[in-house]
Amino acid sequence: MPKTKTAPASAPSNKKVVLAYSGGLDTSVILHWLVAQGYDVVAYTADVGQEEDFAVAREKALALGAASFHRADCKEEFVTDFIFPAIRANAAYEGRYLLGTSLARPLIAKHQIALARRLGAPAVAHGATGKGNDQVRFELTYKVLMPDVRIIAPWKDPDFYERFPGRRELLAYAKKNRIPVKTTAAKPWSSDANLMHISYEAGELEDPARRPRDSMFQLTASPQEAPARETELQVEFKRGNAVRAHILGQERFYTRPYELMQFLNQVGGANGIGRVDMVEDRYVGLKSRGVYETPGGTMLMAAHRDLEGLTLDREVMHLRDMLMPRFAELAYNGYWYSPEMEFLRAAFDKAQEHVTGAVRLALYKGNIVITGRESPESLYDSAQSSMDEAGGFDPRDSEGFIRTNALRLINWSRRQRRG
Amino acid sequence: MPKTKTAPASAPSNKKVVLAYSGGLDTSVILHWLVAQGYDVVAYTADVGQEEDFAVAREKALALGAASFHRADCKEEFVTDFIFPAIRANAAYEGRYLLGTSLARPLIAKHQIALARRLGAPAVAHGATGKGNDQVRFELTYKVLMPDVRIIAPWKDPDFYERFPGRRELLAYAKKNRIPVKTTAAKPWSSDANLMHISYEAGELEDPARRPRDSMFQLTASPQEAPARETELQVEFKRGNAVRAHILGQERFYTRPYELMQFLNQVGGANGIGRVDMVEDRYVGLKSRGVYETPGGTMLMAAHRDLEGLTLDREVMHLRDMLMPRFAELAYNGYWYSPEMEFLRAAFDKAQEHVTGAVRLALYKGNIVITGRESPESLYDSAQSSMDEAGGFDPRDSEGFIRTNALRLINWSRRQRRG
Amino acid sequence: MPKTKTAPASAPSNKKVVLAYSGGLDTSVILHWLVAQGYDVVAYTADVGQEEDFAVAREKALALGAASFHRADCKEEFVTDFIFPAIRANAAYEGRYLLGTSLARPLIAKHQIALARRLGAPAVAHGATGKGNDQVRFELTYKVLMPDVRIIAPWKDPDFYERFPGRRELLAYAKKNRIPVKTTAAKPWSSDANLMHISYEAGELEDPARRPRDSMFQLTASPQEAPARETELQVEFKRGNAVRAHILGQERFYTRPYELMQFLNQVGGANGIGRVDMVEDRYVGLKSRGVYETPGGTMLMAAHRDLEGLTLDREVMHLRDMLMPRFAELAYNGYWYSPEMEFLRAAFDKAQEHVTGAVRLALYKGNIVITGRESPESLYDSAQSSMDEAGGFDPRDSEGFIRTNALRLINWSRRQRRG
Amino acid sequence: MPKTKTAPASAPSNKKVVLAYSGGLDTSVILHWLVAQGYDVVAYTADVGQEEDFAVAREKALALGAASFHRADCKEEFVTDFIFPAIRANAAYEGRYLLGTSLARPLIAKHQIALARRLGAPAVAHGATGKGNDQVRFELTYKVLMPDVRIIAPWKDPDFYERFPGRRELLAYAKKNRIPVKTTAAKPWSSDANLMHISYEAGELEDPARRPRDSMFQLTASPQEAPARETELQVEFKRGNAVRAHILGQERFYTRPYELMQFLNQVGGANGIGRVDMVEDRYVGLKSRGVYETPGGTMLMAAHRDLEGLTLDREVMHLRDMLMPRFAELAYNGYWYSPEMEFLRAAFDKAQEHVTGAVRLALYKGNIVITGRESPESLYDSAQSSMDEAGGFDPRDSEGFIRTNALRLINWSRRQRRG
Repeated sequence: MPKTKTAPASAPSNKKVVLAYSGGLDTSVILHWLVAQGYDVVAYTADVGQEEDFAVAREKALALGAASFHRADCKEEFVTDFIFPAIRANAAYEGRYLLGTSLARPLIAKHQIALARRLGAPAVAHGATGKGNDQVRFELTYKVLMPDVRIIAPWKDPDFYERFPGRRELLAYAKKNRIPVKTTAAKPWSSDANLMHISYEAGELEDPARRPRDSMFQLTASPQEAPARETELQVEFKRGNAVRAHILGQERFYTRPYELMQFLNQVGGANGIGRVDMVEDRYVGLKSRGVYETPGGTMLMAAHRDLEGLTLDREVMHLRDMLMPRFAELAYNGYWYSPEMEFLRAAFDKAQEHVTGAVRLALYKGNIVITGRESPESLYDSAQSSMDEAGGFDPRDSEGFIRTNALRLINWSRRQRRG
Repeated sequence: MPKTKTAPASAPSNKKVVLAYSGGLDTSVILHWLVAQGYDVVAYTADVGQEEDFAVAREKALALGAASFHRADCKEEFVTDFIFPAIRANAAYEGRYLLGTSLARPLIAKHQIALARRLGAPAVAHGATGKGNDQVRFELTYKVLMPDVRIIAPWKDPDFYERFPGRRELLAYAKKNRIPVKTTAAKPWSSDANLMHISYEAGELEDPARRPRDSMFQLTASPQEAPARETELQVEFKRGNAVRAHILGQERFYTRPYELMQFLNQVGGANGIGRVDMVEDRYVGLKSRGVYETPGGTMLMAAHRDLEGLTLDREVMHLRDMLMPRFAELAYNGYWYSPEMEFLRAAFDKAQEHVTGAVRLALYKGNIVITGRESPESLYDSAQSSMDEAGGFDPRDSEGFIRTNALRLINWSRRQRRG
Repeated sequence: MPKTKTAPASAPSNKKVVLAYSGGLDTSVILHWLVAQGYDVVAYTADVGQEEDFAVAREKALALGAASFHRADCKEEFVTDFIFPAIRANAAYEGRYLLGTSLARPLIAKHQIALARRLGAPAVAHGATGKGNDQVRFELTYKVLMPDVRIIAPWKDPDFYERFPGRRELLAYAKKNRIPVKTTAAKPWSSDANLMHISYEAGELEDPARRPRDSMFQLTASPQEAPARETELQVEFKRGNAVRAHILGQERFYTRPYELMQFLNQVGGANGIGRVDMVEDRYVGLKSRGVYETPGGTMLMAAHRDLEGLTLDREVMHLRDMLMPRFAELAYNGYWYSPEMEFLRAAFDKAQEHVTGAVRLALYKGNIVITGRESPESLYDSAQSSMDEAGGFDPRDSEGFIRTNALRLINWSRRQRRG
Repeated sequence: MPKTKTAPASAPSNKKVVLAYSGGLDTSVILHWLVAQGYDVVAYTADVGQEEDFAVAREKALALGAASFHRADCKEEFVTDFIFPAIRANAAYEGRYLLGTSLARPLIAKHQIALARRLGAPAVAHGATGKGNDQVRFELTYKVLMPDVRIIAPWKDPDFYERFPGRRELLAYAKKNRIPVKTTAAKPWSSDANLMHISYEAGELEDPARRPRDSMFQLTASPQEAPARETELQVEFKRGNAVRAHILGQERFYTRPYELMQFLNQVGGANGIGRVDMVEDRYVGLKSRGVYETPGGTMLMAAHRDLEGLTLDREVMHLRDMLMPRFAELAYNGYWYSPEMEFLRAAFDKAQEHVTGAVRLALYKGNIVITGRESPESLYDSAQSSMDEAGGFDPRDSEGFIRTNALRLINWSRRQRRG
């Protein structure tokens, strides 16, 4: 029975479990329920830039019966080891989703496992559901980093999910057990926030023909509300990583990864940058509708790709572009820590060695306009490509080039004709 | 000597040559020069939607000594057989360029060869330079469609290009030979227009750090100038092809491919849609800076990709996305007519069989916002993906799914640990 | 509980189930056990060329309590719709396994579902285990072809597998229930036979350092035992499919797909062709050791690939070669009937349009030596490629070709040097 | 005129040129002719294991007028930096050609450029023809390693090739100028030998329907002539590189790369291993017939691939297999030194980190039979994959795995049915 794998009944004598705890309704009920099942629950929250009041979360967790509360500050690591590699890869899942949640999950799970090891807990728990992607991202990471870990996933345990078939039962349980619930009306969608993005899904978003209400968005102004004049900034990269950003004409420079991302989010958000609305494919085989706002990430991606135009070899770029969908798929599906991701990253990192330089972006009501780029590592040579000068290029070479390339096509064409 | 391949001296007794003639300075000088070399020049212009006065072009060609002038109306074919296949492929070269010129060249060359065959001309000529991509697109198409054709490319013939090292010499020749030249001040860039786009390159654009002047753009308003309120429209697709478009609330429907594209260009252009500025890789090995405005194409691509989210199988989409860069590269490099393109198109067309449905787009100052999509061929099932109902999905299946997928990773992880 | 999905207890009132029945120990016990659980069992066997006595199987099935026995003759279809497409793709899983079992499973499942539909059975059953690939191949095919089918897989039902933890318990049950078991000593491996191959795994083969005993092989002589002189034959292809084969100097021609395969198996087997021994990756995440003998398939693959050298365009071949591993993976993993396979096959079939011609093979003690090939669709032109004549090729064209291709590399090299 | 690019007339005042000199007819005539044109010719020969008498070559070169003769010993480097990386990649061009010549050319060119730099020579020369692949491999390497080098390629210089349209004129020139020519009857093919292989093409091989005469082969016995009993050996790898080999039962171990390759060639050649006969695609767009004998390389490839079965992660292997054709294509086309090759190699090398272990091979009359493999880095777990024990695998997990994977297919299937 799967029951034996998740149910508390069979818990070993060491009843310690590290729960990924957000402070929201689901994980609060789960925390309380685990305690009621006899678990020794360590509430764990990762700070991935989600702008949350961790003191409140701590207090609530302890009130619900957690043995302790731990907060891991993962903000800087999130940028350097997750967001930046994704930007270096130009990674967009199914062409559009910049992977904000997908990137955070393995990091959260990594620190959760580290905590479990530190505290000697044989088990970890999460509040992700059985239909979603996050369960996979959490659990594959758990298994890679601690192969023998026991995973408690109440939303896949009939003892739990049959008791709580819907939100109503969760609220009733909360009420009965004095679990404080934010008094704000429940929003008809669920969301996930971190330094890279806020994502929205479920609830009224489940109708893909329906436009999301504008009030849903939290990180970005709508293009309509954004300022009526351009904001121009410059982002500088070294080996594919953003190392400095500033607004042109201003003297404040942002160089530390976390503050640089925050700065881009703030200025991008104010200018209406980075909303995406799409139907996407979940790893479990379902299609799902997601809405995202990723201001800083969108700007970084635009700037990075543009700089690659100047500095990346053509064939390397085309090979990488062919493999990018696989990189994005692996990140999306939860394979951040996997041999195949290491394989791809070895090549992708090699490609970035010269992606160094500066790109200027003008932001205006949702638009990112590239206004200039330059690089000490440029492969562009204006004399060479100029239509007005020879630049060392002999036009007759093109004749041989074309004739040689045509040979194969001519042989094929002649066969077609005689066929 | 290459000379023997291009120079008029060795022309056969049939001196008829079909010249791709635009009416501009270069091809006018070329026309006159070919006539002076003893050629029997047929001036040929393809109408690919470039909004030109063909009567003026005809008159000028005949005045310059052309034996005749032929205009091929390729507008509808351009949309159905070139633009639509590219949209179906979501084709963007190096992530951004929607291939406007790349798509038109093989079509222009195809009709040029048809004309050469009809008129019994053994030769064709074009005015593309030896550093660019267009020479390849023209010449590979010529060779595939008429393997024995003789190609005259004056910009690769030293007799020509040594005589005309720059614009100044062309203008002097024009003046001396009474070739009318548009009196407007020469623009410091060159451009190419068709129904899909206008491209700009060269001249002052050769500095990639320099933003193009706003006055350069002809098809699109700048986002700043665009209307201050949204225009919402709906585009309907059948098997990946746009078959109907209209502005919501208006009764005018556009269904014929050419007028549909014109409509999208007009409404997209008015709303500041589709400008791209990039450094790209030419096939001859140079990097080059290009600026594009592709209003309708950009909208079609956005709508098409969105509809794929609803209707395309995940694995098919991911495979296609992996191959898309190759499709774009082949189109860009001039291999529209090639066995490898046929190979890719067989698969890509298979993929589009169910990409049928409607997408709504709100345009606003450069933004395309997807506001809804629906399809009779949808693979999305809201009950199935809903977070609020089971929808036939057993959450415990996910346990087996994840555990099975984790097995390989666990084995790998254990080896890493013992290593 | 998984029990509710597989256990007979919850069987609907229509208790009819079509069991893929081989006549061996496992499926005989399963048949008997299903009957004991109150099922109305239809015993079904597909003839995929496995050289079995179907009359004996029928008799045994009926004796065990089957309501009826059905044999589907799938031999010709196996060749034309499964083996030939795999050969056309040059499909080899992990470089070596020619997919014999992988190809047969979807075909067997297809006819099993057809029978279930015909007989109004709501359920199908198979005897594949929970660790192997065949369960996936069967079940994915079942689900695609009859999405609502109920699948009974005793080896994944604790009621069954806890009762029969090993071969000993199966034999005891057989004895007790008078199920006839072949009196031959159990071989220390399991095998699967069809027209394409015999595969061996498990038992003593589970030690990858141990060489299989020579007596294990049934389809092929060892190279040592094979005749001491060459047998030369010719295989002719049309659009990638073998259409005729004969031994040179003999007048007997084999043209029907099934007899052609039989002929190749016979002559190849006699000459020691087609043994493979490898460790491979199962879809469920395990590595497994497999040994195969595929005489005819190996010869067809060698001949087909050779003919492609003469007739297939280079770029098409290279693209296809890049995608072949995916084709093989899909076939191996059970995705024969899937949209992504249709996507690939559309392209692969396009590629084969001109793979027509004849290849001569000399067989000798395990070797396949290509001794000649010719084709009316050849892209090879001996004059063109000759080192002794110009053949229309201007050597100076190569200069332009190389110089143009070098341009990009020179730019890259110069950057490396200044870096 | 191309003439200005290759012709001696325009040679700069520094008339020193390093000629890749083989001692054969072509490069001997070229050497003499270059001297006659006023060049200061340095004869250069790379020892890549081709078993040549370099003293004879030196004497001949000096007699022909060379200013000096230089021999570079590249044997060890050839194995470690060229052959081994190709084996690690399982690289086979168009499925069969193990790239023997392709691998040697960039190495030869590298040392030629190093010599040119050392001697202050502004030019290098080679004797490759304008139709072949070697010209590209030489010249791209020259350009990458010394972008400003002047390349003299007489077979693409009309002054040379119009004077020597065929072998007859070369022989006449040799006779007239007392250039010694081997008195053996000219063989009706040309060949290229190095430690990896001997290749044969041209002459009577230009008829792809004709089997090569057995007397052509020099490195390998025919299977018929090979010993009538097996020779069994073991090859050990570390990180994908062969580090030790020996014949089972013998005490002689081969560990240095060069002697290890020699040993494998000797024992493989004696046992008839590694002949290939194919029609392949040259980079210049022609198809060409090539015959190869690669005894040691074929054995290494077989052993390496087999060890990967035991030690390489599935997804890494499948990704690498997808990219292998590109690696082979790049090597074949002359892009050994290129950014795209560096990109691929970064990933490929990552993949090899655990390809460590031993493989046993039995050689018998052309056959390589894998007789066992073992590794301290094995990912194979016999308990886990055993059909006889659970090995930690819960069969019910497969149910969830299959059902989850089936979900997408069911949705697709249902759409097909309603369509």
